[in-house]
Amino acid sequence: MEREEALKIVKEQLTEHRYQHTLGVVETAIQLAEKYGADVVKAEMAAIFHDYAKFRSKEEMKEIIKEQGFPHDLLEFNGELWHAPVGAYLVEKEAGITDREILDAIRFHTSGRINMTLLDKVVYLADYIEPGRHFPGVDEVREIAKESLDKALIKAIQNTILFLMKKNQTVYPDTFHTYNDLVQKLED
Amino acid sequence: MEREEALKIVKEQLTEHRYQHTLGVVETAIQLAEKYGADVVKAEMAAIFHDYAKFRSKEEMKEIIKEQGFPHDLLEFNGELWHAPVGAYLVEKEAGITDREILDAIRFHTSGRINMTLLDKVVYLADYIEPGRHFPGVDEVREIAKESLDKALIKAIQNTILFLMKKNQTVYPDTFHTYNDLVQKLED
Repeated sequence: MEREEALKIVKEQLTEHRYQHTLGVVETAIQLAEKYGADVVKAEMAAIFHDYAKFRSKEEMKEIIKEQGFPHDLLEFNGELWHAPVGAYLVEKEAGITDREILDAIRFHTSGRINMTLLDKVVYLADYIEPGRHFPGVDEVREIAKESLDKALIKAIQNTILFLMKKNQTVYPDTFHTYNDLVQKLED
Repeated sequence: MEREEALKIVKEQLTEHRYQHTLGVVETAIQLAEKYGADVVKAEMAAIFHDYAKFRSKEEMKEIIKEQGFPHDLLEFNGELWHAPVGAYLVEKEAGITDREILDAIRFHTSGRINMTLLDKVVYLADYIEPGRHFPGVDEVREIAKESLDKALIKAIQNTILFLMKKNQTVYPDTFHTYNDLVQKLED
């Protein structure tokens, strides 16, 4: 699929604000892919579609998670997590994207996972640091991203865990597992 | 076993500094048990023995963890965690304590666990806030402990996770599972 066709499909699914965010993620993902040697075309495509399911209703997302046998503990944690696996499913079903690496990068762009691929990391980080993002700590992660993809990811996940703990919210286990996995691999 | 006999056994295993810490944990555990309706005698005994294995060698602890089939992932995480399950094992074997609730409170006093018992919580928190403890955030946890055992525990675990993340260290999975479990139960 060509970039323009993909963008057209996604634009229909998003608010204007979220579409602008998506364009920021696309540009950042391409830059990170070039810098760290990921597949630039796949990074672009995953970034375009990463928030495809963002505005589906909670009911539809719940239904898909149950039907498709996605991890059921998702439903016990923050609903903000749901659009990622549901998005990967819908992007395949409705937009006809079949590349497993692209679909996985969409699927894990919010929770992370053990053994993230280079493409997973690029999309996760691009979503966190694209130019439209403004929140405490984002500039520090942008700086680290110039030196190390893994260290920037670790800092981004630490910030996310901290943010949730400050609000006394739960942290999805895969997020913690991703943090531990990245730290352990950096130590090796 | 009587208090004096138990203290005599433990004193031989610890440095003077750690023995003084233990006495603080004992007094705090008794106070928390009285306040929150836990078994005061068991709380006292678990507190006395909670650091029994603290000064065993890393080699001995590793050996016991492997032999006894304790979760093997312990060995991949901070060695500070090991004395708790190893202590529960040695307290049974060497000091003849057989009460399962006391042994569990010792076993989980560093990592926590899903579905912590009242006794587990009392010993965990007493270890964190006993009067000899001086570190950032401990006074806040002491204050919260006057109102809610669970909220004080959540804050203590948040502080621990934060402390580890600041040093870019891994967080033992049972620790964040405990955090999520306590937060989820508080919400219910």
